[in-house]
Amino acid sequence: MDAIERLIRPRSVAIIGASADPSKTSGRPVAYLQKHGFAGEIYPVNPKVGEIGGLACYADIASLPDVPDVGIVLLGAERAHAAVRELSERGAAAAIVLASGFTETGAEGAERQKQLMEAAGSMRLLGPNTIGLVNLTDSIVLSASGALAMDHFPTGSIGLVSQSGGILGALLSRAAARGVGLSKLVSTSNEADLELADFVDFLADDGATRVIALYIEAIRNPARFRQAVLKARRAGKPVVAFKIGRSEAGAKAAVSHTGALAGSDRMYDALFMQLGVIRAKTFDDLLDISAALAAERKLSGRRVAILTSTGGAGTIVSDSLGVAGFATPAPDTETAAQLRSLQSGSHATLDRNPIDVTLAGLQPDLLRSAIRILLASPSYDALAIIVGSSAVGSPTLMADAINDCLPMSDKPVIAYVSPYAPDVVSVLTRRGVPAYTSAESCAAALDGLVQAGMPKQVQTSGSIAPAVDVSDFPAGSLDEARAKALFARFGVPIVAEKVVASSGEAELAARGFGGRVVLKILSREIAHKSDVGGVAVGLTAETIGGRLTVMAEEVEARTGKRPERFLVQEMISGGVEIILGMHRDPLGTAILLGMGGVTAELLKDTTMRLLPPEGGLGLAEAREMARDLVTWPLLDGFRGRPKCDVEALAATIVAFSRMVAQLGDRLAEAEINPVFVLPAGQGVKAADGLVVLNV
Amino acid sequence: MDAIERLIRPRSVAIIGASADPSKTSGRPVAYLQKHGFAGEIYPVNPKVGEIGGLACYADIASLPDVPDVGIVLLGAERAHAAVRELSERGAAAAIVLASGFTETGAEGAERQKQLMEAAGSMRLLGPNTIGLVNLTDSIVLSASGALAMDHFPTGSIGLVSQSGGILGALLSRAAARGVGLSKLVSTSNEADLELADFVDFLADDGATRVIALYIEAIRNPARFRQAVLKARRAGKPVVAFKIGRSEAGAKAAVSHTGALAGSDRMYDALFMQLGVIRAKTFDDLLDISAALAAERKLSGRRVAILTSTGGAGTIVSDSLGVAGFATPAPDTETAAQLRSLQSGSHATLDRNPIDVTLAGLQPDLLRSAIRILLASPSYDALAIIVGSSAVGSPTLMADAINDCLPMSDKPVIAYVSPYAPDVVSVLTRRGVPAYTSAESCAAALDGLVQAGMPKQVQTSGSIAPAVDVSDFPAGSLDEARAKALFARFGVPIVAEKVVASSGEAELAARGFGGRVVLKILSREIAHKSDVGGVAVGLTAETIGGRLTVMAEEVEARTGKRPERFLVQEMISGGVEIILGMHRDPLGTAILLGMGGVTAELLKDTTMRLLPPEGGLGLAEAREMARDLVTWPLLDGFRGRPKCDVEALAATIVAFSRMVAQLGDRLAEAEINPVFVLPAGQGVKAADGLVVLNV
Repeated sequence: MDAIERLIRPRSVAIIGASADPSKTSGRPVAYLQKHGFAGEIYPVNPKVGEIGGLACYADIASLPDVPDVGIVLLGAERAHAAVRELSERGAAAAIVLASGFTETGAEGAERQKQLMEAAGSMRLLGPNTIGLVNLTDSIVLSASGALAMDHFPTGSIGLVSQSGGILGALLSRAAARGVGLSKLVSTSNEADLELADFVDFLADDGATRVIALYIEAIRNPARFRQAVLKARRAGKPVVAFKIGRSEAGAKAAVSHTGALAGSDRMYDALFMQLGVIRAKTFDDLLDISAALAAERKLSGRRVAILTSTGGAGTIVSDSLGVAGFATPAPDTETAAQLRSLQSGSHATLDRNPIDVTLAGLQPDLLRSAIRILLASPSYDALAIIVGSSAVGSPTLMADAINDCLPMSDKPVIAYVSPYAPDVVSVLTRRGVPAYTSAESCAAALDGLVQAGMPKQVQTSGSIAPAVDVSDFPAGSLDEARAKALFARFGVPIVAEKVVASSGEAELAARGFGGRVVLKILSREIAHKSDVGGVAVGLTAETIGGRLTVMAEEVEARTGKRPERFLVQEMISGGVEIILGMHRDPLGTAILLGMGGVTAELLKDTTMRLLPPEGGLGLAEAREMARDLVTWPLLDGFRGRPKCDVEALAATIVAFSRMVAQLGDRLAEAEINPVFVLPAGQGVKAADGLVVLNV
Repeated sequence: MDAIERLIRPRSVAIIGASADPSKTSGRPVAYLQKHGFAGEIYPVNPKVGEIGGLACYADIASLPDVPDVGIVLLGAERAHAAVRELSERGAAAAIVLASGFTETGAEGAERQKQLMEAAGSMRLLGPNTIGLVNLTDSIVLSASGALAMDHFPTGSIGLVSQSGGILGALLSRAAARGVGLSKLVSTSNEADLELADFVDFLADDGATRVIALYIEAIRNPARFRQAVLKARRAGKPVVAFKIGRSEAGAKAAVSHTGALAGSDRMYDALFMQLGVIRAKTFDDLLDISAALAAERKLSGRRVAILTSTGGAGTIVSDSLGVAGFATPAPDTETAAQLRSLQSGSHATLDRNPIDVTLAGLQPDLLRSAIRILLASPSYDALAIIVGSSAVGSPTLMADAINDCLPMSDKPVIAYVSPYAPDVVSVLTRRGVPAYTSAESCAAALDGLVQAGMPKQVQTSGSIAPAVDVSDFPAGSLDEARAKALFARFGVPIVAEKVVASSGEAELAARGFGGRVVLKILSREIAHKSDVGGVAVGLTAETIGGRLTVMAEEVEARTGKRPERFLVQEMISGGVEIILGMHRDPLGTAILLGMGGVTAELLKDTTMRLLPPEGGLGLAEAREMARDLVTWPLLDGFRGRPKCDVEALAATIVAFSRMVAQLGDRLAEAEINPVFVLPAGQGVKAADGLVVLNV
């Protein structure tokens, strides 16, 4: 049995610093272990107390009658390390350290955390600054969360890992109130040792867990997170994550809370998308989506029947589903006829959706028949049932009726409870019909099911290419010609161009290219050439010589330095301008694709993919990036324009990504801006770019 | 006392079709009137029953001992009109008709509704298909909503009007559970007679109402709605609205529910913005924002202090506030010093926000001091207090502490309750600290306060201009030259251009303009000239003649008709392309401004304003439209570009809007596309456009 297994399912628990007063935080763990039915040994440790909760209290860890599997350390930050050392020496599997005052408070705290880790030796450690863990499957509560004052928690299949202790308590109590059953809850907090990925890995194997829910402030070890998530997904367990830090303000708060460096939010978007992690957009969505997934029914399309006995609420749900991209089509002729046969003499109009059976809320048989018809209907992939005020008086009546129909289909069935009726929400959810009190939650839940059901190929390997020799490129900022030469080395097509030093050479180059050309200064120092008058377009062999002289003077006037070298390039006309770049942060290195031009830049039409550990991006992923752009139609023949060479663009993205992968940390910055994507069959041309290489 | 006054505050109520069984819908109104303490006369009417709830039951309306102020008609759709007729004949002020089966079910139902209105005569009518109304201020319940089975409803200052009966019940029960006090609730539903605007108008005068909340499916009478809202705003009462129909699916459901034509959602956005109505983005936000407004505290900026005793929840709130554009700055030096003096020997780090006072949840004095310091701090405009799991056991402890501090400042104070703790939510809200269980609600609530506090000038009058003579323009589709001549008549600057019929005339025209010119075919039939080869740019006097011949042939080949007239225009280079158009739907006529170019079109960068009743838009509003655009920086000198002539653009928007206002229904379609906005001082030039005039 490994240490994490012993931590989650201990046979014995020592509580160091236990108080006999259960109203104190330090009194809670013993009280909660007893209250929630721990069947193993509980060893309170406190030299000043003889007995706690009817249990013998020990003066110190050395006096314990047996080696505890787990020690819960309730001492303050200054004293915790001593207890941790003793637990380690006695052979405990793990210590849970609740005290705050470590990395999250600054340099002094970081020193204390280092001391704590040294004291732990080979013993595993949860925390510090954690509220502990709760194993509902086995009635084992190793936590001081005030939420455990509640008497009962429904047991279920959702395993939760939270990087915040307070959030563990919030989710524990909120889930219980809604009838959402959890299996395990772990708060990792400072993650001095055990971290998010350890518990995702554990839950991937845990028989009681079918869905993994994560509250994330910052992923400290992206590689291990990736491995653990892929393992969970191979085990058929969807992973849902709420990640804070969508705003600057939030990101700062995250840092102060966990002492971790938060990667930028869009990098997380890319990571989650690539690993198939379902991202909860709001904190509430984390439970909303997890509850829907825990019902283990399959959503195979986006057509939803809304069955209602109250008009307004059905409209609200329909509206929210519509905004989220779901369809709520009217019943097909046969389904409508079946529905109509249920009621006679009524004014209910059954050729619409929401399907309004005004009296159904009070007539279980009618409701049952309507549900059966809708679940069997070929027009719908899921059913949303609206619960109106009439059902409040008899919460189980409706639940019973729905319940009877569930086995006949594996289409998802969810409920929206319109009035305040917590009993109805809880009863429905416990019986396998996840119930929601907001329309946005309904949409988020169904959207989570769509994502979980998508046959998205989990990215398991990147594209590997033979290494390219780049030993001839110097460190530092490359000039434009060198930058493009580097891109070309990896297979990026670049515009025809020639470096020149004089008007005569420029004329010769322009004549060689034929047609119109572009003239630019060539410099390692000046990144924004056009800002200093260093770019001229639409030149010919006749005009370029004079223009070069003028440009040299203008640039000298503006920068104080006369440019000595210039670039003559073929001028690309037509095609769509694209930006291709890279971004690196603690989460990894990403490739960024964006629509070019100033309008798209203002509207931020970009998409990102993290590089996989193995190398560059694959072709399929590169194509997907192009389709991600809101302005994708520009590449796809919008309004009779020619379709662009998307295959060539995808190949260029792959080539660029392989370059970024191979150069690794040697590459500080790289961007191609713009790449012209020409009509299909004509390829792409990188027209400008920059590269900064580290030493 | 007018009829609506008698409807809302009746001294006597007849219930026609009352049942003695309170579990039936028809048994509820009498039971609820009694249960919730109606002090006036209750007259049940039912020929088959002698007594209901201890009250004498009457055989028919004619037998009633007195004229009832209100009759609640519980009979089915086929019989309701007879009761309505009798009530009207006896002189009742209003009837409330609950039955469904009217316009919402189709043609037959519409016929029934007409019959019902005829029966009502001069008596006012609420419904049909309504759940009635609830006057909590005066303990008068005229409703059959199942939500009234709850025992107690906090009374407060929020007046609610809902176009759905089910939603009235949902809001009534949800508000009660959260401790949000309401004054009046009215469900207008089919609005055969009394409608939304009638009750907004009533609530504007109602002394017990300080905030007006609306659930809207479709505004049937925009002019009356406008008047009522302006009256409410003049009375200092903010109006909050949730409008369904954001998606196509939702819009369809709205039609089927209320039988009304829903205007497009963006038109509602414009209407609400122009009237200063705060739009709730989600149904939950309607109560969230109203509750915040009901606390009647003033938000004068966007800097929020977050006081927390639990890290994760503070981070979630901070994150949501950040996304919503709020700042959560760290305390200034003095504030931080004051906070630090509260705790000694603690690890709490008080130079951050969220401000984490780890033990405060259990120490009311410390909490009180921290709140005082933050309310007095010049660094913050509002305070959000995070309630963690520790406060669950003692809900009033925290509320008491907060309560003590409220009088010292009128900055808004809200609470976020992290664990499931409905008692805490309710206690805090009832004591004037609106409490929320989602971070998005906190952000929406504060954003609502910002909107309510904005010194936004309510648009009370449009820009009026002398009528322009346009009698010489024919009906139907105008050709491009005529369309622009119409624009010019109203003051829109257009490009220099000349209509020509031959190559010779074209050469002459081009020579006259000098520089490069554009050649286009001129046709009333062909709207998309470039699709048929009917546009050529960059021509000179030398090249235009030949090009005209080629164009004539190409257009003939494609359309089968040889073009006879052409337009020669000066060619505009530089400047920013803008689209200026109009849109008309049941809500009114709007002016649309959008960024031109295909990228902006794909990204839908547009903004709209409804025309006021008096005429065109004002200059200030036109300027505001330009600033609404996401790509506004393109007009404002983005990255060293020249600033554009925004004043000329604004004047053009006003001119165009006056044209639309004057032409009214005669104008079927009008669009200028593009308008070139030139550098400041150089004005704008309308380069193309279309107009369709009705007969």
